[in-house]
Amino acid sequence: MPKQVDHRERRETIARALWRVVEQRGIAQASVREVAQEAGISHGAVQHYFATREEMLVFAVDFASAQTSLRVAEGVSALGDPPHPRDLLRVMLTELLPLHPDARTTSRMSAAYVLEALHDANLHARARDGLAHGRDLVERIVRQAVADGHLSPDRDPATETHLLLALTGLTPLVELGVIEPREALTAIDQYLNRLFSKGT
Amino acid sequence: MPKQVDHRERRETIARALWRVVEQRGIAQASVREVAQEAGISHGAVQHYFATREEMLVFAVDFASAQTSLRVAEGVSALGDPPHPRDLLRVMLTELLPLHPDARTTSRMSAAYVLEALHDANLHARARDGLAHGRDLVERIVRQAVADGHLSPDRDPATETHLLLALTGLTPLVELGVIEPREALTAIDQYLNRLFSKGT
Repeated sequence: MPKQVDHRERRETIARALWRVVEQRGIAQASVREVAQEAGISHGAVQHYFATREEMLVFAVDFASAQTSLRVAEGVSALGDPPHPRDLLRVMLTELLPLHPDARTTSRMSAAYVLEALHDANLHARARDGLAHGRDLVERIVRQAVADGHLSPDRDPATETHLLLALTGLTPLVELGVIEPREALTAIDQYLNRLFSKGT
Repeated sequence: MPKQVDHRERRETIARALWRVVEQRGIAQASVREVAQEAGISHGAVQHYFATREEMLVFAVDFASAQTSLRVAEGVSALGDPPHPRDLLRVMLTELLPLHPDARTTSRMSAAYVLEALHDANLHARARDGLAHGRDLVERIVRQAVADGHLSPDRDPATETHLLLALTGLTPLVELGVIEPREALTAIDQYLNRLFSKGT
């Protein structure tokens, strides 16, 4: 196996081990030592791939975002071409919410990271940039939907974008079992149908 | 001062110290030792009031919820009698989101607690009950709004309740500075105005 590929794969294996630690025991437990044990490799081996816990954490979060994007792309490829913005947004929201095991893993990683970033200046800038990037992506979809006549031009794209992103606020309800994943999907569908029905 | 009151006050002082530790350094740092130091009292004194870290944490979260409810009650008392459900829900959402320092403190406490509850069976049941209680409260407001003709009877109260609670999903955007508090308020107002405008 080429060295470059092997290096990348080892880092991803370590990142997945970190996700499991975060999902099952919380980010406070995600030390280099614990992650090494979860990955079944030595402490020194992890340090070979990541100089610090922070470097490991940042890679694990970026990898989680990339995997979420891959799942979204897969979902979108099953839609029409071009997809209706309602369907596109539905796929994105479904993958951001903990509605199936893979999405739950990346959702918990992301939630824990945001909280950690609130008291870590280095992580704060990175986390903010990541969220701002996601926001810009959704805003482009909203603006295009207005341009294509799917959304009424009297909608403010920025506000609609924030309201769409707010739907990730269903997460604690699903995570704590207050509502079922299908109830979260019903709410998302209700919201999107109403948003795209223009008159109502 | 009566002993009962003093006991309660000391517990609240410790809870506020715990909130500050969570807000500034994260829940992982909220050990009995760190909280005692933040409160400016001895480790043994904290242990006099709370037998375990978990007991201290549970009290601090319940106290945060109670303080949020007090702020909501204060905001509601400034409204008409009876208040319009739109205004009532606006006050509730404003106090749940980190839009001012007191609300930010309790919001962070609550977010950290939910994540901690995901891998702690004792906390899980308590956190779920707390969130379910909040959900039931909002659903009663929604059902009353339908009964009073403020909301169209073709709205499903459960789904509307979940969508209202989802607005707390604006939290990470505000916390990381991706949007300003006033943009979050604009989104909430837009949502509530649309919800209560019936025809639109």
